[in-house]
Amino acid sequence: MSKVAETTLEKLDRAFNPRSVAVVGDKQALGYMWLRSLIPFKGKVYSVQIDPNELPGIAELGVENYLTLMDIPGPVDYVIASVPRAVAPRIVEDCIQKKVGGVCFFTSGFAETNTEEGIRLQRVIADLAGKASLNLIGPNCVGLYNPKIGLRHTEAQDYGEDGSVGFIAQSGTHATLFTLVGQHEGIKISKSVSYGNAVVLDSTDFLEYLGADEETKIIGMYIEGVKDGRRFFRSLREVASRKPVLIWKGGETEEGARATASHTGVLAESGIVWQAAIKQCGAIKVDNLDEMVDTVKALVYVKPATGTRVGLIAMSGGQSVVVTDTFAKAGLKVPLLTQSSYQRLATFFNIIGGSYRNPFDISSTFLMADNGVSNLASMLDVMDQDPNIDCVVLELFPVIRPLSQNPETADPILDTVSDFNERSEKPFMLIVTAAYSAALASETRDKLVERGIPSFPNFERAAKTLKRLADYYQFRHEQSQN
Amino acid sequence: MSKVAETTLEKLDRAFNPRSVAVVGDKQALGYMWLRSLIPFKGKVYSVQIDPNELPGIAELGVENYLTLMDIPGPVDYVIASVPRAVAPRIVEDCIQKKVGGVCFFTSGFAETNTEEGIRLQRVIADLAGKASLNLIGPNCVGLYNPKIGLRHTEAQDYGEDGSVGFIAQSGTHATLFTLVGQHEGIKISKSVSYGNAVVLDSTDFLEYLGADEETKIIGMYIEGVKDGRRFFRSLREVASRKPVLIWKGGETEEGARATASHTGVLAESGIVWQAAIKQCGAIKVDNLDEMVDTVKALVYVKPATGTRVGLIAMSGGQSVVVTDTFAKAGLKVPLLTQSSYQRLATFFNIIGGSYRNPFDISSTFLMADNGVSNLASMLDVMDQDPNIDCVVLELFPVIRPLSQNPETADPILDTVSDFNERSEKPFMLIVTAAYSAALASETRDKLVERGIPSFPNFERAAKTLKRLADYYQFRHEQSQN
Repeated sequence: MSKVAETTLEKLDRAFNPRSVAVVGDKQALGYMWLRSLIPFKGKVYSVQIDPNELPGIAELGVENYLTLMDIPGPVDYVIASVPRAVAPRIVEDCIQKKVGGVCFFTSGFAETNTEEGIRLQRVIADLAGKASLNLIGPNCVGLYNPKIGLRHTEAQDYGEDGSVGFIAQSGTHATLFTLVGQHEGIKISKSVSYGNAVVLDSTDFLEYLGADEETKIIGMYIEGVKDGRRFFRSLREVASRKPVLIWKGGETEEGARATASHTGVLAESGIVWQAAIKQCGAIKVDNLDEMVDTVKALVYVKPATGTRVGLIAMSGGQSVVVTDTFAKAGLKVPLLTQSSYQRLATFFNIIGGSYRNPFDISSTFLMADNGVSNLASMLDVMDQDPNIDCVVLELFPVIRPLSQNPETADPILDTVSDFNERSEKPFMLIVTAAYSAALASETRDKLVERGIPSFPNFERAAKTLKRLADYYQFRHEQSQN
Repeated sequence: MSKVAETTLEKLDRAFNPRSVAVVGDKQALGYMWLRSLIPFKGKVYSVQIDPNELPGIAELGVENYLTLMDIPGPVDYVIASVPRAVAPRIVEDCIQKKVGGVCFFTSGFAETNTEEGIRLQRVIADLAGKASLNLIGPNCVGLYNPKIGLRHTEAQDYGEDGSVGFIAQSGTHATLFTLVGQHEGIKISKSVSYGNAVVLDSTDFLEYLGADEETKIIGMYIEGVKDGRRFFRSLREVASRKPVLIWKGGETEEGARATASHTGVLAESGIVWQAAIKQCGAIKVDNLDEMVDTVKALVYVKPATGTRVGLIAMSGGQSVVVTDTFAKAGLKVPLLTQSSYQRLATFFNIIGGSYRNPFDISSTFLMADNGVSNLASMLDVMDQDPNIDCVVLELFPVIRPLSQNPETADPILDTVSDFNERSEKPFMLIVTAAYSAALASETRDKLVERGIPSFPNFERAAKTLKRLADYYQFRHEQSQN
């Protein structure tokens, strides 16, 4: 790594872990969204605002206001600028003079507008920051999120806890949505960043930073375009050899690329080129937010496996057919079990209204039996011990009346699957569909997250995620053999 | 149509519209699920049960009990049998003697178990019913649902209202799930049936019945296998020429076909053969429950169009890129608008923090403007009047704070889109994502259903549905030209 790059990383470390933050230009019209997002921040928060009409609102939040950055008494590690675009150059100059650790420009209206003035202003701030080696993030972005110290970009984000997942997004919306959806799915963020037009710091800088960050074990990225493709893919290959990196590419289609030009001012490269390059670098390609969330969740919680032979357990005959079709279509195998498994199943499994080849339809033996929960444990054990099976998949609660209408009866079942997840060495996936009751499904999923077993909302998402994981671990395994 | 078929239809009409229903063998262990499902039924309900322990529970429900079907004083139009499989032949004999309109066997344990006794019993009831032309539905199914008269198979199903959507499912779970999910999506059922092992009446009988039923405008089917493929596809072609028929095939894969054998005892034919035959007959192929629900919903609520040029409106820049990629990948076009549209947009659209080529990113002009709602109406009108655009797609409420945290501010927006939906002749689709708040998204979707505009939960489902619809209407259009 070059000397300059090291300096960038050192300075990024100061911006990602600030002890003081200044918000420039927050206002009532935005509901003081930036100052509010910093309420749990564990360091000093300052406001910079010259509009006298805004001062009472800022005072009400208990934040000290200054007329310029330079007036702030101590050092400022991180600045959030939400100012009119014409003011941006002056704020950049102030940041340079104040020697801040980094500045995020929420301000938009630059090259992405394809106007003369926007393009000119973007060039001015890029030149100023570039010459002074100022860590400028954006413009047209929401910047950094470090939950442990309460540095956020929206009030809805969690704070106070450690995490292991890093997220890098060219889009503020996707940075926000990933962290918010992740909160419900047991995905805990180490650090995340939205970087918009990327006029100074680009995706590669953040990838190298989170690649070196010890807290970050997995990295997700939403990218519209990179300035230096060669440097990006060199870094990607290096980081992806040490930790999983997932890439969601915005602007893969011709029409989508037109949209990225209006969004972050970047020209998106061809989707096919990216697809090949991502694969060659050993990163994982995902195509949307759901796939990003599912795959990260599985990397965190599902035990690694290269095998693709799946044992499927469904709660009704109709679901047993559909889950099997879905996993087979995703490229997974649904093999028969060994004879000794079938002998064991024959001792307790009621085939009137059920079946146990593979898939299992367990309605008769689990749901309608007095000792249903212990039967479920036995069925899971058969799957666990069968040498034909690499991964176990269980569907919970689609429609069955006694369970659906009485959440308390669900707890012993959740304990049983949670015990199994702890004692089995095989990857184990749970699917909780929402068809019967969205509210109950949501409650059940939350309980499972508390028990450390996030679930998947339908067969398709579970099957595709398992296949993506198996491919990834297979690739890693082959690499390690070379 | 042959004389025998006409008789079957006439008799099915009696079973689908019964004035009296008898439940044989309902019991405490099942929570008296059948008698409870009939609480809103607008005709006479009888119980047949010989176990004295069950009689107090039945009396408590206010239902008269008899020891045999023959003891019931008047005629019985429809029988639901939930008895041990060994008793099934005697119940069939009783139904024949009582000249009932139809009997559904919830009872399972027949050929699907692949046991000698199960296969033998299935043959016995099939022979008895076949010889006497008894309308036997099942066994191993949940039978008929006619919401208008309160004939249901689960307490969770709606009743009392007319509907236009018929559903035919080999699986009881899928019949139940489709009707329950449909209830939240504005899909109103005319009549539905689950028919299990199909030993007497098969999918074709129900297809012909609902094909002739005037209330039923759209037919959805979940099929594992048919007994007489030639007859089925002949009927399918005929019915599909008059109303949309959607087919979801269970057991498309080799592994899935093994599951259908254990589920309903049928041997599923190759998925590829079905795929070709469905297309040739002019029916619509769907691959899972979500696709079934989405496509039916769109057939009911979205105006027909053969064009594939889409105008996309998203609530943030990041979403505008992703929605565009998604629609383009689904095979739809996202063209530029005409110059006159751009001239009109330039008069009110704020491009600082937004953009309006196609897609539109409307955050600056809608969400952050005082006259946001009227701007939204103007943007929709531009799309409506632009000759380059066939269909309009709008994303609502992903993450934006003022809207997300204050549901009341949503109402004028919902009124605006509802007005647009009524006055525009172009197909219009709404997407309400759940990322920011599942509860708010759910509430918003319910309000939209009340206004007659069901929404889609993500970009993929909306895009794929629109493409499926455009292909269908294009096919119909070509057929009508021949």
